[in-house]
Amino acid sequence: MSDSPTALDLPMVDPLPEATRKYFDICQEKLGMVPNVLKAYAFDIDKLDAFTAMYNDLMLAESGLTKLEREMIAVVVSSINRCWYCQVAHGAAVRALSGRPELGEAMVMNWRMAELDARQTAMLGFAEKVTQESARITEDDRQALRDAGFSDRDIWDIANVAGFFNMTNRVASATAMRPNADYHAQAR
Amino acid sequence: MSDSPTALDLPMVDPLPEATRKYFDICQEKLGMVPNVLKAYAFDIDKLDAFTAMYNDLMLAESGLTKLEREMIAVVVSSINRCWYCQVAHGAAVRALSGRPELGEAMVMNWRMAELDARQTAMLGFAEKVTQESARITEDDRQALRDAGFSDRDIWDIANVAGFFNMTNRVASATAMRPNADYHAQAR
Amino acid sequence: MSDSPTALDLPMVDPLPEATRKYFDICQEKLGMVPNVLKAYAFDIDKLDAFTAMYNDLMLAESGLTKLEREMIAVVVSSINRCWYCQVAHGAAVRALSGRPELGEAMVMNWRMAELDARQTAMLGFAEKVTQESARITEDDRQALRDAGFSDRDIWDIANVAGFFNMTNRVASATAMRPNADYHAQAR
Amino acid sequence: MSDSPTALDLPMVDPLPEATRKYFDICQEKLGMVPNVLKAYAFDIDKLDAFTAMYNDLMLAESGLTKLEREMIAVVVSSINRCWYCQVAHGAAVRALSGRPELGEAMVMNWRMAELDARQTAMLGFAEKVTQESARITEDDRQALRDAGFSDRDIWDIANVAGFFNMTNRVASATAMRPNADYHAQAR
Amino acid sequence: MSDSPTALDLPMVDPLPEATRKYFDICQEKLGMVPNVLKAYAFDIDKLDAFTAMYNDLMLAESGLTKLEREMIAVVVSSINRCWYCQVAHGAAVRALSGRPELGEAMVMNWRMAELDARQTAMLGFAEKVTQESARITEDDRQALRDAGFSDRDIWDIANVAGFFNMTNRVASATAMRPNADYHAQAR
Amino acid sequence: MSDSPTALDLPMVDPLPEATRKYFDICQEKLGMVPNVLKAYAFDIDKLDAFTAMYNDLMLAESGLTKLEREMIAVVVSSINRCWYCQVAHGAAVRALSGRPELGEAMVMNWRMAELDARQTAMLGFAEKVTQESARITEDDRQALRDAGFSDRDIWDIANVAGFFNMTNRVASATAMRPNADYHAQAR
Repeated sequence: MSDSPTALDLPMVDPLPEATRKYFDICQEKLGMVPNVLKAYAFDIDKLDAFTAMYNDLMLAESGLTKLEREMIAVVVSSINRCWYCQVAHGAAVRALSGRPELGEAMVMNWRMAELDARQTAMLGFAEKVTQESARITEDDRQALRDAGFSDRDIWDIANVAGFFNMTNRVASATAMRPNADYHAQAR
Repeated sequence: MSDSPTALDLPMVDPLPEATRKYFDICQEKLGMVPNVLKAYAFDIDKLDAFTAMYNDLMLAESGLTKLEREMIAVVVSSINRCWYCQVAHGAAVRALSGRPELGEAMVMNWRMAELDARQTAMLGFAEKVTQESARITEDDRQALRDAGFSDRDIWDIANVAGFFNMTNRVASATAMRPNADYHAQAR
Repeated sequence: MSDSPTALDLPMVDPLPEATRKYFDICQEKLGMVPNVLKAYAFDIDKLDAFTAMYNDLMLAESGLTKLEREMIAVVVSSINRCWYCQVAHGAAVRALSGRPELGEAMVMNWRMAELDARQTAMLGFAEKVTQESARITEDDRQALRDAGFSDRDIWDIANVAGFFNMTNRVASATAMRPNADYHAQAR
Repeated sequence: MSDSPTALDLPMVDPLPEATRKYFDICQEKLGMVPNVLKAYAFDIDKLDAFTAMYNDLMLAESGLTKLEREMIAVVVSSINRCWYCQVAHGAAVRALSGRPELGEAMVMNWRMAELDARQTAMLGFAEKVTQESARITEDDRQALRDAGFSDRDIWDIANVAGFFNMTNRVASATAMRPNADYHAQAR
Repeated sequence: MSDSPTALDLPMVDPLPEATRKYFDICQEKLGMVPNVLKAYAFDIDKLDAFTAMYNDLMLAESGLTKLEREMIAVVVSSINRCWYCQVAHGAAVRALSGRPELGEAMVMNWRMAELDARQTAMLGFAEKVTQESARITEDDRQALRDAGFSDRDIWDIANVAGFFNMTNRVASATAMRPNADYHAQAR
Repeated sequence: MSDSPTALDLPMVDPLPEATRKYFDICQEKLGMVPNVLKAYAFDIDKLDAFTAMYNDLMLAESGLTKLEREMIAVVVSSINRCWYCQVAHGAAVRALSGRPELGEAMVMNWRMAELDARQTAMLGFAEKVTQESARITEDDRQALRDAGFSDRDIWDIANVAGFFNMTNRVASATAMRPNADYHAQAR
């Protein structure tokens, strides 16, 4: 197996720009690795920067959704789409953030079997519908989220996190993106 | 019907920052309107900037795919997902860029009935598979694109444009985003 | 591209019988064209006559459904089946009869995003179920139509119009029937 | 259970016009019954006449397809759509016309398990695709029929018989049309 | 056509062990045939014994479900999976046990069109969901069965009978298992 | 959360018969637990014995398929059906038997992304088709397995293992069967 993060022959810019190099160093330091998705985009720094800007805004910036909730959405969407890369990487994140390894497993395998409260059930049900039949979403679906305690801003965030992984799942699967091996054993 | 670009109560930052105001002015001047998707994101300027950066890189930056080809992918994906906003807005773009109104209609209604060359057929077939069953994509699918004349960089771009509209389709449908009325009559 | 209305080599009876010739002349005069579907059937006048008799009874005869409502059903069904011919031809009819171009577009793209009253929503929801999962229709579905103000005769008409386009959509797609080019620009 | 042929309250014209009465008498004499589908349409003689004209042309008029082949298509389509009325009535026809009761059963239950020659397999495969995904039919599908010995006129007939039952299946299911009880024991 | 009960070349143990020979003799005497499924498994007596033990426990042992109800589940599941062998064999059983030939036909063709009481409707609706989307079953589905009068032990039995035919349908279809011809004419 | 292995109130026979007690003791000793599926069936010892006899024959008896290959089929089928219990328990078995934790993960998440040889790819492709569309299996599918080196006996075993998990997946999901917590951390 080659070292390439995907099945496409798209080598990283060499040398990397200073800012990118620093960003990768921070990843290495904090995560113990540079996630392959970043290496995959690094053949074009503009594309890498656009991706990381959107990713960081959605997953790390302030939101009415906790980081764990956003990662739960990520895994449920990635499970529906059967994305190898994203289930591995974000499944690890759910295990780590929740301290409950079986929660990460349930998000991958069948979220309906997880022990969830009413808020999380509503959130994941909406993310599932966004993924599977977004054209059938109506005001009733949005109102159900409001009734479960979500603000309109929260609804925006659920839709956008779910939407984002519907993008990255497809990019990863279409390019045979490989997850870093280290994820598998994390937070078990 | 309210003026809001979506069904969510998320008013634009007021006043808009100088840079955003200028960007909207340019849209008004060049397109005759500010696309509602931009107004929808403008409740949070970081989100708006992340969205426009990715959009502009994918749809307007240099690529082995023409702008028309990227718009064709956009409409085919949006048709599969039945996204009202994106079919209206990008259907107009296909009509305008191609000078063939019926081509925009065919991308919306059934791309297999359009008059396409082998390259475009391969491209749209891959975009369709990325949209409908990305988890089943294998090296054979990528090789078929190479055989049709696409480079690995082109394959990346097809996957990313298709992926992007799988995101925006879901965001637009989940929030009931309304297309600007002006699109309907354009380039007929 | 050949002149043939379909991909099959089935030339029209030549010369056409007097009655058919007159009917085509009326079409030319009133519609500005002879719809290709009529030319496609004209290789066998018995088949043409059976088709036009059923079509005219369903779409033009007296009914509790307006002609616009019947055309709305036609387009929604044709959109689900992604029939190129019928979406083009009947999409134009919805635009013309309603005077609302965007209504025709919404029937093609995603009827749930159109501005509809409760009666039309019930009618199109039933037509959709007739198209997608008729075997699951139960008395509850018929009662919902009665509750929305439809008579049993109206229910028959909705079912038959929806059924008819489930036939013609398949005939048109199976034979690669081409819509007359004039439809595209009509009533925009 | 009421006597009505459907769940709708649409009584037959009373008295029936002379021509209809004669037609029903012939049915009674030749089939031992008046098929309920005719009684269902008989609330409006124009609709009944349009239906019988199309039915008789498709199923009984001259064609490159035998009457048995047309009935086989009818049952395969009706099985996919799970139409109670049409599987019962036309399953009986396949049993009677073929003299092979198990052939009628196989058309209902799983046509791929029937003993068929290459021509019939191609014909039913096309009818299945017409029913399930007509929008994906391309010239390759039509050519496969030509290669199996069908003329373009035959292809038209296959498409139209398949299309017709996609209409009647939906009308019958949407109205809960009841098959005459006599069919069940016929040709066993 | 060969004599083999499946498309696989797996001849029966020869000679059969005494106990198996006796069991087959009893089948011949009571049913007038040795069901082909038993012959298919008889290449390995351990597998045959495991299959018959489970079958007899589920379908013949004491249960809150009548034998007819269990056969109704068998046919509905086999219809969804379009298993030729099981629809033929168990369709005959429903006809025989109920004395209502049309009930067996309805289980094969579209169970929603059968005349059923509320208990049977709930039972078959659950069996359908077990077959089509078991991962979406929640406590609400089980409670609906309890509300229809089923005990928790009955729910276990419905789930296990439905599960069992989801196994045998796939084994029979994957091996092209042929039903004994005698079934077709039984109990008509 | 209660201690019950399922959502049904079906307590184990108490006291357990001697043979069952011994079997459970062996499980405890060799696996460190009594799998919950056994406890679930233990409300009726005949059912438990029928289940374990079939399970042990399929998964542990001699076969042309290795135990790992049978477990790989188990997990791929359970992943398609999204069965929480079986993915957890048999995912652990794949990790343990292969010594490759990521192989167990890939069987759960997307088997097409695993590193497999041609034999395993053919085997899992067949198991997938058995699970998703068994009614469309034809001789071509069986021949493809023979071409990949499988005997007819092996084909029987693939079909039966795949069939078996299509049963147990549905029983487990329909009853909300809970996997033993110990599985999650095994063989990581």
